[in-house]
Amino acid sequence: MEGKWIVGVDLGGTSVKLAFIQEDGEILHKWEIPTDKSEQGKNILPDIADSIQRKMVELGETKERLIGIGMGAPGAVDKEKGIIYEAVNLGWPKNYPIVKLLSDLSGLPVEIDNDANCAALGEMWKGAGNGAKNIACVTLGTGVGGGIIVNGDIVQGVKGAAGEIGHITIIPEGGAPCNCGKTGCLETVASATGIVRVAKDTIIQYEGESSLKDLYISKGSIEAKDVFDCMNQGDTLSASIIEQIMLHLGLVLANIGNVLNPEKIVIGGGVSKAGDLLLNPLQKYFNQFAYSAVSASTELAIATLGNDAGILGAAWLAKNKH
Amino acid sequence: MEGKWIVGVDLGGTSVKLAFIQEDGEILHKWEIPTDKSEQGKNILPDIADSIQRKMVELGETKERLIGIGMGAPGAVDKEKGIIYEAVNLGWPKNYPIVKLLSDLSGLPVEIDNDANCAALGEMWKGAGNGAKNIACVTLGTGVGGGIIVNGDIVQGVKGAAGEIGHITIIPEGGAPCNCGKTGCLETVASATGIVRVAKDTIIQYEGESSLKDLYISKGSIEAKDVFDCMNQGDTLSASIIEQIMLHLGLVLANIGNVLNPEKIVIGGGVSKAGDLLLNPLQKYFNQFAYSAVSASTELAIATLGNDAGILGAAWLAKNKH
Repeated sequence: MEGKWIVGVDLGGTSVKLAFIQEDGEILHKWEIPTDKSEQGKNILPDIADSIQRKMVELGETKERLIGIGMGAPGAVDKEKGIIYEAVNLGWPKNYPIVKLLSDLSGLPVEIDNDANCAALGEMWKGAGNGAKNIACVTLGTGVGGGIIVNGDIVQGVKGAAGEIGHITIIPEGGAPCNCGKTGCLETVASATGIVRVAKDTIIQYEGESSLKDLYISKGSIEAKDVFDCMNQGDTLSASIIEQIMLHLGLVLANIGNVLNPEKIVIGGGVSKAGDLLLNPLQKYFNQFAYSAVSASTELAIATLGNDAGILGAAWLAKNKH
Repeated sequence: MEGKWIVGVDLGGTSVKLAFIQEDGEILHKWEIPTDKSEQGKNILPDIADSIQRKMVELGETKERLIGIGMGAPGAVDKEKGIIYEAVNLGWPKNYPIVKLLSDLSGLPVEIDNDANCAALGEMWKGAGNGAKNIACVTLGTGVGGGIIVNGDIVQGVKGAAGEIGHITIIPEGGAPCNCGKTGCLETVASATGIVRVAKDTIIQYEGESSLKDLYISKGSIEAKDVFDCMNQGDTLSASIIEQIMLHLGLVLANIGNVLNPEKIVIGGGVSKAGDLLLNPLQKYFNQFAYSAVSASTELAIATLGNDAGILGAAWLAKNKH
């Protein structure tokens, strides 16, 4: 068999996704291991190195096949120093030198970036970005993440905090508290968690008939997907909740559009599976709030890679370094 | 005399600023000519070429002294094609090929960019940016302009519309109409014109004592500077007007900070002459609305070059091309 492989790693708080990926971006082998957060996360990097080694043995391959490891990590990183400033979810100490540690453990060169940035690079390379070199990505998951790509490279920012789209303030006064310590962040409204919060607040105050309200009463809880599903089945309360959320998200994306006028703004994460139910109202508010030349030229698109965006973007990092 | 010169040109709706500038950014000779907008602006570029030629003769120099011309123009440009999409204030037809025309007239290579982008490059090179390669600039003048610099280069955007900070929507519903056709743009609040509008609206509804109100009644009009001056003399109405405006501007700059985490955000234009009267409340709201890692690392700074930013940034364009 010909060709070199890249190891793409997407390190999350629950599991680590790994893959061997060809230089053209084709995923050859993909697997997952649990993230062991015990003992301040000291086993995480050894587990990753071991797992890569075992998979190579299993496939009858040697290390010469591998170009290097690219890894997305859940926190702001300093790529030059090879450290992650803070990774609260993993238990690691501050400024943990993950590049040196993983490189020593694996005997391979290692490149890192923030996980949201990796997802953005993946979408640029093989997904909705479709090779566009200037894109903004927003990931609507449990939280809201972002990645900004200018001229084909991630914008890191002076302290690794570029792309913090989830913490753009959309409700300057009286907004809901956010995990970051501020209030009224986009994340409090447009994440899966935020959608549920807004929906519950709205349901409680609503006195009319609604299938979403009925579902909430019968199940005792709802998910973001329920709101889109009920809207799709004609529930007007659900439609008004989604409108309210897309107004805020559309405003933020329009403002990012005015700043960067990117070719595409790619919307990913679990919430983006709503597809056109999300995209149609979002496009309406984007057009309303963006400068005319921006709404005419910056395209909104749903991410296409799903969970593979992170490992592909991580692999892109390693490929383009070496 | 040693060394080559660059011609920096800042083309405005009323006058054209020109300068001969050394490669290290020192301005050697600086002058202005009126902008002749008659006959669809057909005399503007010939006037510029003539004026450069006359000044060279006056100084006893020949064209060999000149590296080229850099010019900032009042509208979105396509740098590759060398055209300005639209320059409503000058009367030029759409997609006017200014690079070819000025190059033919002057016999010199010509580089162009939007005037706000040139001001940003000037501040990066010789002003408040102080060599920082990642900065955002906002110009608070008659309107509000912007320029975004990533890795030392202006972000143009797919249709030249990056940096349209003035048209970021800050009042989603019920905002004042903007010249761009939308409502509630930053420009309607934080430009010199916007400050006057907000001040007048506030004065009319205010029944208490206020030196700003007295000034408005006696003069029949006020300027943005009056609001800062009255605030500085202890007028509480003026202070509340500036607070309200800085809340909106601080929110926009915090959101730009969250997207790009630049080293500096530079505030220029006539309104920025208010200095600390502007910067202090602005910094307060920036800190309130920005993600903590952003407010800790992105610095707000007042532009230092004044009217020279445009010619210096234009010269930088020509210097870095050749």
